[in-house]
Parts: sequence; C-alpha cells; structure tokens
Amino acid sequence: MSYARQNIEQMTGYVPGEQPQVPGLIKLNTNENPYPPSAGVLAAIAAGVGDRLRLYPDPSAAGLRQKLGARYGVEPAQIVMGNGCDDILNLCVRAFCGEGEKLAYFWPSYSLYPVLANIQNCAKVELPLTDDFQIEAHPPLLRRLAGVKLLFITQPNAPSGVWLPRVELQRVIEETTGVVVIDEAYADFAADNCLDFAREYPNVIVTRSFSKSFSLAGLRVGWATGAPDLMAALNKVKDSYNVNRLSQLAAEAAVEDRAYFDDVVRKVKATRERISHQLHTLGFVVHQSQANFVFAQPPAPLTAKQWFDALRAGKVLVRWWDSDRIRDFARVSIGTDAEMDSFLEATRAIVS
Amino acid sequence: MSYARQNIEQMTGYVPGEQPQVPGLIKLNTNENPYPPSAGVLAAIAAGVGDRLRLYPDPSAAGLRQKLGARYGVEPAQIVMGNGCDDILNLCVRAFCGEGEKLAYFWPSYSLYPVLANIQNCAKVELPLTDDFQIEAHPPLLRRLAGVKLLFITQPNAPSGVWLPRVELQRVIEETTGVVVIDEAYADFAADNCLDFAREYPNVIVTRSFSKSFSLAGLRVGWATGAPDLMAALNKVKDSYNVNRLSQLAAEAAVEDRAYFDDVVRKVKATRERISHQLHTLGFVVHQSQANFVFAQPPAPLTAKQWFDALRAGKVLVRWWDSDRIRDFARVSIGTDAEMDSFLEATRAIVS
Repeated sequence: MSYARQNIEQMTGYVPGEQPQVPGLIKLNTNENPYPPSAGVLAAIAAGVGDRLRLYPDPSAAGLRQKLGARYGVEPAQIVMGNGCDDILNLCVRAFCGEGEKLAYFWPSYSLYPVLANIQNCAKVELPLTDDFQIEAHPPLLRRLAGVKLLFITQPNAPSGVWLPRVELQRVIEETTGVVVIDEAYADFAADNCLDFAREYPNVIVTRSFSKSFSLAGLRVGWATGAPDLMAALNKVKDSYNVNRLSQLAAEAAVEDRAYFDDVVRKVKATRERISHQLHTLGFVVHQSQANFVFAQPPAPLTAKQWFDALRAGKVLVRWWDSDRIRDFARVSIGTDAEMDSFLEATRAIVS
Repeated sequence: MSYARQNIEQMTGYVPGEQPQVPGLIKLNTNENPYPPSAGVLAAIAAGVGDRLRLYPDPSAAGLRQKLGARYGVEPAQIVMGNGCDDILNLCVRAFCGEGEKLAYFWPSYSLYPVLANIQNCAKVELPLTDDFQIEAHPPLLRRLAGVKLLFITQPNAPSGVWLPRVELQRVIEETTGVVVIDEAYADFAADNCLDFAREYPNVIVTRSFSKSFSLAGLRVGWATGAPDLMAALNKVKDSYNVNRLSQLAAEAAVEDRAYFDDVVRKVKATRERISHQLHTLGFVVHQSQANFVFAQPPAPLTAKQWFDALRAGKVLVRWWDSDRIRDFARVSIGTDAEMDSFLEATRAIVS
C-alpha cells in the first residue's frame, strides 16, 4: 500500500541539470549566466545581511513589483512574484487547471510542464512542433486546443532556442478558451518579446525569470504579469512568503542596474552568434537561437551522445536528453568567451 | 466567466500577519524571534554573497541535510527541505491528498491548513479541540478520521500554545489510515517533541522551521522527516530549486551554532514564563504555553478586540482573529524583555 496519491506514485519527478562540484569544470548545462551579478546587486544583498533576517519578508514584494512595473510598463498590481519562475508555472497549474482537466504544451519544450501536469493529475495534451521546432497553427493543431484549460508556450522555445513568430502565437491564443502562459525565461536574449500580449489578451500570462539575464539563478526570483483576475487567482494559491528578503533586495538592485544588464546581455548574444557560426563551419546543424544557449546537431557519423560524452570526458558539461525528437542534438549554454573557446577546441578535436 | 478553477474562484486566500513599516512599533504579531541570527550565521551568508549566486542552488541541499541529520539523529536521506515550513505543508497536500479526498485538521489551529485544502479542492474535516484546546481522542472523534488521507496536527498547538499529550496523538495516529503531519514549528520552545513518531510510525511526518527558534523567518527554510516512501513522494512534487543558495548557507551555520541557539531559546522561554505569570496576576486567562507566544484572554469587561485595538494605538502590535473559538483571546509573540515590559505597561494601563 502506498500513502501517496496514485498519480504521484506513478510519475517520475523532474530531473534538473546536474550541479557537479568538479574543479575546473566548464559548466554549460543549465543556461546560467557566465557573468556574475553586478557589484551593485552584491552590495545590496550584503547590506541586507543583518538583524532583520529574523523577520518575515514582505509577502507582496511591493518594492520589487514597483520597480519591475516602472521598467517594463506594467501595473505593479498586475505582477505576481515567484520563488523562481518554476514556482510561477506551478501556481498557474494550481489556479487554472484541476484534476482531469486538459493541460497543453508544445513539444519539445521545457520538460517541467508534463511533470507539473502529472503532479496536479491533469490530462496532458502534447502539441508537436514541426521538425524546425516551429508552431504550425493549422486546423488539426488548433482543434486539439478545444477544452484546454492551460497552455504553456516557451518563447523563445527551449531547448531549440528558436523564436516562434508572433502571428502563430496569436492564432493559438485566440483559439484557446483557457489560459495561455508565455514562458519568456529567455526573452531578454531575443530581438523581440510578447509582453504586450499579456496587456492585450484577457487570457495571457507572461512569465519572466531573474535566473538567466540577471545572473541570479542562486536566489530564485521569477514573476508573472497578466489581467487582474488572473493575478488574483495566482495570489490566492501562492505561498505568502515565497520570495525571501535577500532575494527581493537583490532583484530590486538588479532591475535598477540597467547599464550592467545591457552589457551582459550584449556579450552573451555576441558570443552566441560567434559560436553558432563556428559550429556551423564545423558541419553542425545549428538552430538560429534567440536564447542564451545553442541547440546543435553534430555532423555524421558523430552522434550527439558521443559528442556529449567526449566533451564531458574533457570536463566540458553540456546537456543531452535521451528523448524522442531531441536526442540528435545537444544544448550548449553560452559561457564566457574563454569558456566557449575551450568548448570549441574540444569540439574540433572530437569532430576531426 | 472566470479562468480560475471554481474552488479557487470561491476561496479566500491565506491572510498573513501584517508586516507594517511603522517606526518604533513593537511587533509581537507573527511569532518572529526577537533576537537576531548569530554572528556566525551572518558571516556565513556574507561569505556567500558573490559570483556563485549566478548558479542554481544544490537542489537536494545535501550539506544542510547532512548537518540536520547529525544534529537530530535522522537519516539525511529521510529529510526534505522546503522554502519555509509552509512549502513543506503544501507539498504534503499535493503528495497525499487529491481533489475531493479528506484533509483533516484540529480546530482552532494554523489557519493555513484549510486554505491549502481549498487550493487542492480537498474535502475539509475540521476536528474540534476541547475548550482547553486539547485533543479528546474519544470514539466520536476517532470515527471522523475514517478515510482521511492527510491530517495536520500542530504540536505544540497554535494559536493556543498548549502541548498536546503524546498518548492522545498516538491514539489519533494509530486510528488514521492516511498520513499524519505533526507540524512542530514551535517545538524548540517546548519541553518535549514528537520527532520519534516520525521514526516509529510509517505514516507520520514531522515538520520543523528555521523561522522561529533559529531567527531566520526572512530566509525561508523548513524541513520534514519521515519514512523513505513518504519523503520520496515529497521529493517528486517539490520544486527542484526551492531553497536558495544563501538560505542553505545560513541554515547550515545556524544548525552548527548550538550555544547561541540554546541561549536564545532559553531567554525566550524565561520571558514567556514571566509574561504568563504577570498577565495572570492582572486577571488574564493564560494558557500554559510551550511556544514562543502566549494566548491570553483579558479580564471582563475588557474584550480581546478592545485590548488588541488599544495596544495597537500605543504602537504594540499583537494578533487577534475575528473567528469562532478564538475571538476572546489575543496572541502575543514573545519579544525582548524590554519589549515585553513596554507591552505589560501598556496592558496595565488598558486594564486599569
């Protein structure tokens, strides 16, 4: 006999990318930013280390929402903060999609979505992307949206990194009677974003993360914005004190330090373009990435698994999934230029 | 039309105690510790403020679980960490009690339990405590446990602060076919605890918090221990990176600094005994508290609401609920001796 619910008993938990403690490892497996938080952010955290940590944090994170609202042109009252963006995605499931109800997501995309559906015991609707990892919003796909209570879209897509055309997203949004969550964890590295959809459509939530572009994966801050009734539902299901004191301080300082942010994002994008070009020159299939990683298929006869294993043996860790649709590729997070030169050197040796 | 699930639409969210920013306020409303984290804890956090915040935290918090295991005589593999104890309570609901299934809790107790039940759309079973806020594990009550999938017990109880006899808890545990969570957020201030029940019973989980005795409410750390299959279920539903880097470092240092912890707990308990005695002398009904607060009923004709309001006007904030069974009482967190002297002085002026 098991004490756990049957759906929990049967499911497999989410498997996060490894966080190994290997000296000298070049870690390109979980899309962290290779550049540290700014000096201003570190100073703001340090200033918060003191007596007041004995007190609960502000449950509404009012100061942080104020700063986010000003920067992104969003009403602070229409922002909900999360303990990382994953917390927000989970809150969306809890607020909008009950047991047995339809939760949809494109595939391949973020492998957390089906796990969240399993935890809630939702009916999963997997919507296949094309071979180019694009949405083809044709009638057969649109029909599958009937009755969907919650749909996750990763924009730009992960793990492919590709940008999904706005017009395709709009067709999908307009066809969906439930809530559409546009997970923009990587949007700061893209040429465009869909924040305006959260303002225009009553059923769209856009989510953002401090883990990638703001270099704060270790402090767990994410946020969502959308129509007031959608935010009210998220606030009802969120844990009151989900974002701790130091993370709120760090995120506030990070939002304010615009010059540092712009510089970091510019560097990551430049390195991404260089690496994409060089992998292409080596015979790899590389999707045009709008994120802080590239998704690449090595030239035959080298398989992605062989490439991944050989890199790992040389202390370069990238991400590979033994999963349909994506096992021919590996995903490589963008590191510093020096790290990427080592990665390229190792890759050249493996290919040749 | 609402996009939210019907149970979410109809429910009221949890209302946390206020976190007002009033200069000079004596804040005795949310059971925070009046003493700061130790110098060692603050140094450990400060040492963690740097480049590595760009990296995700250890999803398993292995170092922290190791230290907790050593201190409390628990297998580290049988510990699950939470973003505060509230996170753990929520994970228990998600792992063990589905929509429409029975979730039970004694009443009055922690007002988050019914909120968590509503979010999951469970069937709530409210088990009344006696007028002395005790469990009377007689047959009518035990029969109500039939079919219960999850039962929350706060030990010592909140908001009353009273200790529930172990033998009564054991009768309840043995009668329950589902999981029993003993929420020991305040156990460090009690003369005894029930951690052994988590070792002995296959259906018992004990939860603990760093927010009270460890003075770390601002950093959100809680934990659970119980049988391996119960912990496996919690790990499946928990967010991978729920405890951030700095909180893990702070909690590790807090567990190690045993002398400081003992001193803080001793001081809080001594102040609690003094305040209980003095309120009693002033004619208040005061329950024998085993926590870091006292639950007191003022002498007639003064009502608890009048007492609460008058204290608040004098910048002393305690907690009062306009709720059946408890509206005749106010809950007063134990502050420093100086704060409690101000509280007593204000109370004397109100009573006389």
